[in-house]
Amino acid sequence: MTVGDLGEFGVVNRITGRLPQGAAVMLGPGDDAAVVAAPDGRVVVSTDLLLEGRHFRRDWSGGYDVGRKAAAQNLADVAAMGAVPTSIVVGLGIPADLPLTWLDELTDGFRDECAVVGASVAGGDVTRCDQVVIGVSALGDLKGRAPVLRSGARPGHVVAVTGRLGYAAAGWAVLEEGLAVGSPALEEVVAAHRRPSPPYSMGPQAAELGAGAMLDVSDGLLQDLGHVAEASGVRIELDPEAFAVAEPVAVAAKEVGADPLEWVLTGGEDHALAAVFPSEVSLPASWQVVGHVVEGAGVVVRGREVGRRGWDHFE
Amino acid sequence: MTVGDLGEFGVVNRITGRLPQGAAVMLGPGDDAAVVAAPDGRVVVSTDLLLEGRHFRRDWSGGYDVGRKAAAQNLADVAAMGAVPTSIVVGLGIPADLPLTWLDELTDGFRDECAVVGASVAGGDVTRCDQVVIGVSALGDLKGRAPVLRSGARPGHVVAVTGRLGYAAAGWAVLEEGLAVGSPALEEVVAAHRRPSPPYSMGPQAAELGAGAMLDVSDGLLQDLGHVAEASGVRIELDPEAFAVAEPVAVAAKEVGADPLEWVLTGGEDHALAAVFPSEVSLPASWQVVGHVVEGAGVVVRGREVGRRGWDHFE
Repeated sequence: MTVGDLGEFGVVNRITGRLPQGAAVMLGPGDDAAVVAAPDGRVVVSTDLLLEGRHFRRDWSGGYDVGRKAAAQNLADVAAMGAVPTSIVVGLGIPADLPLTWLDELTDGFRDECAVVGASVAGGDVTRCDQVVIGVSALGDLKGRAPVLRSGARPGHVVAVTGRLGYAAAGWAVLEEGLAVGSPALEEVVAAHRRPSPPYSMGPQAAELGAGAMLDVSDGLLQDLGHVAEASGVRIELDPEAFAVAEPVAVAAKEVGADPLEWVLTGGEDHALAAVFPSEVSLPASWQVVGHVVEGAGVVVRGREVGRRGWDHFE
Repeated sequence: MTVGDLGEFGVVNRITGRLPQGAAVMLGPGDDAAVVAAPDGRVVVSTDLLLEGRHFRRDWSGGYDVGRKAAAQNLADVAAMGAVPTSIVVGLGIPADLPLTWLDELTDGFRDECAVVGASVAGGDVTRCDQVVIGVSALGDLKGRAPVLRSGARPGHVVAVTGRLGYAAAGWAVLEEGLAVGSPALEEVVAAHRRPSPPYSMGPQAAELGAGAMLDVSDGLLQDLGHVAEASGVRIELDPEAFAVAEPVAVAAKEVGADPLEWVLTGGEDHALAAVFPSEVSLPASWQVVGHVVEGAGVVVRGREVGRRGWDHFE
């Protein structure tokens, strides 16, 4: 069975039938719009577009992983403001010959990634497209706190990261090289490329701890910290020795013949969080201090200025 | 100059530089997410995907009209809940060879359509795509009122419409037939195809008047009222004599050799509003009573049952 066999309303019913609604969703799918709780009188909103062939490949990733990834990258943006995600809405472009099993897996991926943070899919739109196109917007609740911006880094702050770095880049390289994925390490990085595991709860935690600035590492740590440096009018100095390269990333680098630190510093799509904190804040072990903020501009690694390396969508 | 000449960050800066922020936007573009006011502790959210070649053609519509249309169809969904739109976020897929003038016009279209309702573009995402893809999500404020759902139609209610019906279908037919657009009437329907003019303020007005159900006519009046009939468990009877076919639609129908009432009843994309009201409500002249609600199921026109005619995206 394909999407075309069911027709638009059949597809919508099939999708919504698989989606339980969380507590924050006051009115779910089925009307012109959804209604979501925004308890403190504000709502955080983020949006992203994922395109087949550019952000995922159906021969590399199943529907379930694509759904989880699409939800994850938006939920991570909300967490990076210090907010708790409440819901997502999804605009879906799909080919008529798309197997229904793939659509079901995609839907389940949205559902399960949302469930990680207690959110749900509040609404959406389905249209026909030659390739799979996914537009996700995520909403979140700041719980009375101020949002943590990119512009709040000040000299004297320490720079810390939490979550995976370099995993998705390693997994992409393994797939690109066509390596046999036999070992647990290679399996782990390939799985990480297919499906990120953002450290969602660390976002609100960082806000509670008094983070001065925070963002989601989506285009690569150096490039993303460049945004913090620019928005804050400061210089960020990173200590390459401070990065503990994770074992699976190191193994994959050896197999591919790449520099694992390059992946850690410039690889995107893991959706780690990077934040700066006043130096007196006592950070939980989940945060790894990797540098500090000084007067000046740009991002430097061990005294060497680096360009904006990462992912420019029009290069 | 094209999009590719500027690069991703140049494009983002160019877009955001053209976008003033409205009062409801507490934090606009430039961070991981935006923050929008939701004064009564709830937020209305709607999303739609517009694809080049399917929802618009660059040889038929300029960037400005596409931007206005993309914003309009989402803002109309929010209005159809009885809410006042506060902001939109936009996910944009664009080719590297897209002229910057087209992108500027698109941006100005988003901006100006939002300005009609006092909303603004709070954030977005830009990525590269072979064709133009636009994902819009709109947020709105219910101002303390209950949302007006599709499920609240009851026997005894009158059915009323406000806004244009049949204009966009007429304009599409004129373009499809390749007719010379010389007369004011043909110009008007073609302009309506390119850029809808939803009766936004009538949404909150209907809610204030006590509308039992309401929706945005996006796929055609018969099909859309079918959703109301189904969600409410009622039958909707329309009186075809009650529809005043607008002069430009009548003129276009004569030129094309079509039935104008067919366009009025089944044409989508004008984003009129259809609502049901208790019969004792005294409706302003902007609402045209076109039928009533009875016990039963489905939608009938002058005693004849009609199928779900309109636009099925997978037919």
